[in-house]
Amino acid sequence: MTSTQMLREIHEQPEVIERLLANADALAQEVAGLARGCRHVLFIARGSSDHAALYGQYVVSTKTGILATSSSPSVMTLYGATMDMSDVLVVAVSQSGETSEIVDAVAWATGCGARTIAITNNEDSRLARHCDVVIPTRAGKELAVPATKTWSSQMTAMLVLAAGLGAESLLKAAADIPAEMARLMDVNVAPMVEALLHSQALMVTSRGFVSATALEVALKLKEACYIAAQGASSADLEHGPLAVVGPEVPVLIVAAHTGPTIPGLIAVAQKAHAAGARVLLLGGSGALADNADIAAAQTHVPEEIAPIVLGVPGQLLTEQLARARGIDPDAPRGLSKVTQTSE
Amino acid sequence: MTSTQMLREIHEQPEVIERLLANADALAQEVAGLARGCRHVLFIARGSSDHAALYGQYVVSTKTGILATSSSPSVMTLYGATMDMSDVLVVAVSQSGETSEIVDAVAWATGCGARTIAITNNEDSRLARHCDVVIPTRAGKELAVPATKTWSSQMTAMLVLAAGLGAESLLKAAADIPAEMARLMDVNVAPMVEALLHSQALMVTSRGFVSATALEVALKLKEACYIAAQGASSADLEHGPLAVVGPEVPVLIVAAHTGPTIPGLIAVAQKAHAAGARVLLLGGSGALADNADIAAAQTHVPEEIAPIVLGVPGQLLTEQLARARGIDPDAPRGLSKVTQTSE
Repeated sequence: MTSTQMLREIHEQPEVIERLLANADALAQEVAGLARGCRHVLFIARGSSDHAALYGQYVVSTKTGILATSSSPSVMTLYGATMDMSDVLVVAVSQSGETSEIVDAVAWATGCGARTIAITNNEDSRLARHCDVVIPTRAGKELAVPATKTWSSQMTAMLVLAAGLGAESLLKAAADIPAEMARLMDVNVAPMVEALLHSQALMVTSRGFVSATALEVALKLKEACYIAAQGASSADLEHGPLAVVGPEVPVLIVAAHTGPTIPGLIAVAQKAHAAGARVLLLGGSGALADNADIAAAQTHVPEEIAPIVLGVPGQLLTEQLARARGIDPDAPRGLSKVTQTSE
Repeated sequence: MTSTQMLREIHEQPEVIERLLANADALAQEVAGLARGCRHVLFIARGSSDHAALYGQYVVSTKTGILATSSSPSVMTLYGATMDMSDVLVVAVSQSGETSEIVDAVAWATGCGARTIAITNNEDSRLARHCDVVIPTRAGKELAVPATKTWSSQMTAMLVLAAGLGAESLLKAAADIPAEMARLMDVNVAPMVEALLHSQALMVTSRGFVSATALEVALKLKEACYIAAQGASSADLEHGPLAVVGPEVPVLIVAAHTGPTIPGLIAVAQKAHAAGARVLLLGGSGALADNADIAAAQTHVPEEIAPIVLGVPGQLLTEQLARARGIDPDAPRGLSKVTQTSE
């Protein structure tokens, strides 16, 4: 097997997460100091970082009692909306910290009175310099275009953020992440690679906490395998997109082992089968696996933590499928590492 | 040409919007009375209604100075997060007003202290009965499964909402919507139908205000034409999905005639061409049309209003393409009208 840069970076993740968590208490205290009295957490991000932000919305909203949502950066950068954000904590997420759109949106939010946190892999970046508090992901340089270790460290940073907002117990659960990620490095995704070898389109679904990982896997499969892989929550699938699923368009479900999302995901698997589609499963419960044609990477970590560790089999699938389709996953077409939105 | 129910409902839209606007001032006053002192607008919706909510975020955030975002209903319904929402105005959007997930999410928000508004086509629905204020869309019964007149009336209701929150001037601009919609009924989308006749996948893009319409057109093409049509803002495209675009995966751009989004959309058109993809355009400026292979439905209404009228050519394209692909657009596979999320 050729070793790609992407594969090496996938394997670095347990160490990266461990390093980030070692510093978590001190970072959480910085967050706590800044956030006192804030009533709303607003994430600003694009791409993979935006998927980490979606996870952050679930973690913060459900575990800290503070409403957390996302805003499109263009509300601020293109239209320059002026708002009173004096009780808003803005959390900007950017690997490079140099994406102008994100830096500009944060500068705008500061002007509206918001307090600001950067989650970034570059402590010397413009974004880091601009924000009141920085949660550095310290993932090291990422050379492959598809984000892996920078994404999982952004995801883990959401637990640090939530701990700073009052949900300290999350950091205890997070301690299991590195070992579980290491265990999942050996998952056999070859049958899924085989199943998706010639697919032109794919529906990737989950719900709740793990939705972020489904969207991330869909993005990886788009950028490195050129599959029109669409991520959608299982609830949204039933509002239209399910019609696309069929013999030519399989479904990939990403799920935790337990939790309130399982019955809805089983229903989607059954509807996909009824439409003649194959159903692939990353993670999930036994009952969900019974409704899948190919299942891999079951994990018993709690639902809140599962989205982070389930990134690993999604990345392995992407890396292997890209090579099987004759693509160099380190440098897919049309993309570069620091993304500047065209204006 | 066979006349489908969907086509009849498309043609009803100018009348529906006119009826809604005739009552706009009184409704805006009700909103104003309820919203006094609220600091955050939170939309709750799924599917087409969620696209209207995205438009609502842009309209409210940029025109009223109140931060507006969306929350996934599952934060509330699956995980029962408890938050202080005493300064939050929740706006639930649902055609039927009977989707349990939305009704449950609103009940939960009420328990957290939120004030609530329903935008619904059914004034006697559970959702309408539960909310403090109702903006009824009064689109009449919609029989075709793909939402058309109920969606455009939800979109228009966002202008009523924003007027109630202080942006009264939007209602003046809105007065042009019915006539412009009527004019766009005659747009010739046949060359686009021809271009997409055998497509399995498609990228639909826009940015800013019109993003909502791009997502809606993508959803329509999925549910009624079974094309894996993915909607994404042009900014997000550059964070990965652009890699999918190529000779087999064309790009459909939906755009207003002017505004800050045009340069970014021209850049996307050029990158798509460089990747060997065909570029289709609904709306847009002359400069954007110069970068498209097929262009239709230019409209000169302001950018804030364009998302509503540009729904029409998107719906016409969907209806004609469905029939050209041998599908009855009134009753696509696997979908029903009142959508209940599986639990």
